[in-house]
Amino acid sequence: MISWRRNRRQIRKLLSMSTSDAAMTSLVEEPAAPHHPINLGIAGLGLAGALMVRAAQLDGGVSLVAAADPRAAPLKAFMHDFDANGYTNVQDLCKDEAVDVVYIGTPHQFHAEHAIAAAAAGKHIILEKPMALTLAECDAILEAVQRYGVCLVVGHTHAYDPGIRAMRRVIAAGHIGRVRMITTLNYTDFMYRPRRPEELDTDAGGGIVFNQIPHQIEIIRTLGGGKLRSVRASCGVLDPTRPTETIASAFWDFKDGTTATSVYSGADFFNSDEFHDWVDESGAPRDPQHASSRRKLKHYAGLSESEQRAQQFSYGALKLPLHAPMYQPHFGITILTCERGEMRSSPSGFTLYDEHGAHNFALSPSTGYEGIFNDLRLALSTGNSPRHDVHWGKASAEAMLALLQSARERKEVALTHQTAMPHDY
Amino acid sequence: MISWRRNRRQIRKLLSMSTSDAAMTSLVEEPAAPHHPINLGIAGLGLAGALMVRAAQLDGGVSLVAAADPRAAPLKAFMHDFDANGYTNVQDLCKDEAVDVVYIGTPHQFHAEHAIAAAAAGKHIILEKPMALTLAECDAILEAVQRYGVCLVVGHTHAYDPGIRAMRRVIAAGHIGRVRMITTLNYTDFMYRPRRPEELDTDAGGGIVFNQIPHQIEIIRTLGGGKLRSVRASCGVLDPTRPTETIASAFWDFKDGTTATSVYSGADFFNSDEFHDWVDESGAPRDPQHASSRRKLKHYAGLSESEQRAQQFSYGALKLPLHAPMYQPHFGITILTCERGEMRSSPSGFTLYDEHGAHNFALSPSTGYEGIFNDLRLALSTGNSPRHDVHWGKASAEAMLALLQSARERKEVALTHQTAMPHDY
Repeated sequence: MISWRRNRRQIRKLLSMSTSDAAMTSLVEEPAAPHHPINLGIAGLGLAGALMVRAAQLDGGVSLVAAADPRAAPLKAFMHDFDANGYTNVQDLCKDEAVDVVYIGTPHQFHAEHAIAAAAAGKHIILEKPMALTLAECDAILEAVQRYGVCLVVGHTHAYDPGIRAMRRVIAAGHIGRVRMITTLNYTDFMYRPRRPEELDTDAGGGIVFNQIPHQIEIIRTLGGGKLRSVRASCGVLDPTRPTETIASAFWDFKDGTTATSVYSGADFFNSDEFHDWVDESGAPRDPQHASSRRKLKHYAGLSESEQRAQQFSYGALKLPLHAPMYQPHFGITILTCERGEMRSSPSGFTLYDEHGAHNFALSPSTGYEGIFNDLRLALSTGNSPRHDVHWGKASAEAMLALLQSARERKEVALTHQTAMPHDY
Repeated sequence: MISWRRNRRQIRKLLSMSTSDAAMTSLVEEPAAPHHPINLGIAGLGLAGALMVRAAQLDGGVSLVAAADPRAAPLKAFMHDFDANGYTNVQDLCKDEAVDVVYIGTPHQFHAEHAIAAAAAGKHIILEKPMALTLAECDAILEAVQRYGVCLVVGHTHAYDPGIRAMRRVIAAGHIGRVRMITTLNYTDFMYRPRRPEELDTDAGGGIVFNQIPHQIEIIRTLGGGKLRSVRASCGVLDPTRPTETIASAFWDFKDGTTATSVYSGADFFNSDEFHDWVDESGAPRDPQHASSRRKLKHYAGLSESEQRAQQFSYGALKLPLHAPMYQPHFGITILTCERGEMRSSPSGFTLYDEHGAHNFALSPSTGYEGIFNDLRLALSTGNSPRHDVHWGKASAEAMLALLQSARERKEVALTHQTAMPHDY
């Protein structure tokens, strides 16, 4: 599972911190999950759906049995590729007896409605971030999940990246003491990819706060233990032609005194992949191409951005290689300070810095979705809640909404619905 | 003055933003200052004094005429090297008629006493950061400077780095709109360099809050315009054997709505020079050497850390090359988001990212001290206040003390003594 990038002497130094080589190896690698069949139905064949389909194909233990999308082209491509059932609406997908887990990757404003429909049909759920647009919607989902006794995992987010999960396990094992300070930053082209109108409207769940900040919140909460106390934040619109949040920065205080800062810009100017050896978010090598998303938007003059988006980023249109990328998926730079060491995400996994020096851990190729399937399998096999369950998801949604409130009111906002990450995670 | 790293096409693109090539060139380069003789006396020949001596030697327009230090070795070396007067206390240095500017690089707890002594003797002052340890001390310095009609500049800080000053001028010229978000982060070995006892005692001005955070505050205030509204911060002790702040992170809100985040760790684990092509704080190429400062401390067993520090970092002991380093001085990574572009510090200067792509600006070799001398010359020639004057310095000291207060009280702290950076800077 693990390959080692540095020489044996360095590995021995690191391993000497642990009780045995085997203990350290099992700490860093993704734990095996019990086998449990997942017959997956995909609600929404846009970009998020296409990425989930690819991850399911690569997983080996997931069957793609159905999909729903109102657009003919991606639905037809999916039905053809997987000899699968196709529906033009999510309600019909939820009635399909071949489906036992529904992935909801529909536009944000439909997350609550579709999650509740899936729960009512007795389906387990993988619910794309953001969980919902309001805490009232989160509560409605929570109630439905509890009433119908189904399992819900919130994801995909980059908290499932193997590097983040491995760092979480190093912390939980206590090797370098308690986490004290986390910083995560990401500079991308997010706001200049082609967008549907609602994606440019904050009230409809558009902008980076509803789309990108959930990754940072989940990374911070996963590494910091989960229970936030407050947030002080700013966010802003940079470009009046894209009138929704393009930037945000925040100071997060955990109940136990750990703190975190997050910085995000989706302006397509600087790109922090520059600090990540020009490896992109998915883990693939890339060219710099500064501001190229801004320029591409102009090249499609005549087509609406909704049409551009459908043409470029739907299932079937988006060509994804059927193997995990060379490097690790990531969401920018994440650096953790603990009492006896620091760690950061790296192109090939993560690096641990301690009193002996720097130790690079290269992890196995990954789509970043293995953790979602494994958490779901573990929950379905044991009957326990998944780690990123509906309560966890509501806590992250609370943090996201509080960031927006703090920015608008220019004051610190307390958080009251926070949940802890289990210690054994 | 300027060398260009990229090709002509890219330069033309950038220059097209401006009215003419000459306008852009004069914007990026350090403006010339009127000639004004500086006969400098150095109070304190430790590390800060040694760096100031080197900067004065390289400036060409500064004469090193005297120094004061209670320790025989550095004082003797200085007197020999410059055929200069030497004193064992600062009061005597201030009486030296050959001196017209006193640089105060004595331990922090003496800054106020020595600055007031210099002012009373009619000397102009370059006062090392932190200006003082309390706002009451700042006020006493302010009163003395006004009463005796002398000029005071607070520095050195990395706000004087040519890359920071050039970015400030690009902002002031309005080419890429208003500043909206700033982030600055630095991970160093600071707490594991040999330390005198008071340097490990926060109440005596030790730890990173009094020593390193002033650089970040000055960088943020210089780029953001100066007038902070509030701070929300955390800081912490990591190692009980070095019982003062080793880490700090903060969220800064400016009156005009610009916000900034700062992150600092001096734990000698991760080093952010890794994101800066392994160019060190001074601008010199370096090897990674993770955790080497921790290991070196142990190699000097038998000597106290005060003795180690004197042996390694005093004038005469510290061997500094008599030329500016190959690359630019810096204080970690600083990234600025403006309405129509982003900029960041780079090993050779700064990079501007706009809708046309990335533009690297390579600046002339620098010690990072030219701006101090130029601001002082400009002030002495014109009779105007220097940019980083006593009011500016008090505002930065207020911000530093507020960071500590916010961390202790876990709440946002308002700032009320803030001053603006002049628009023509």
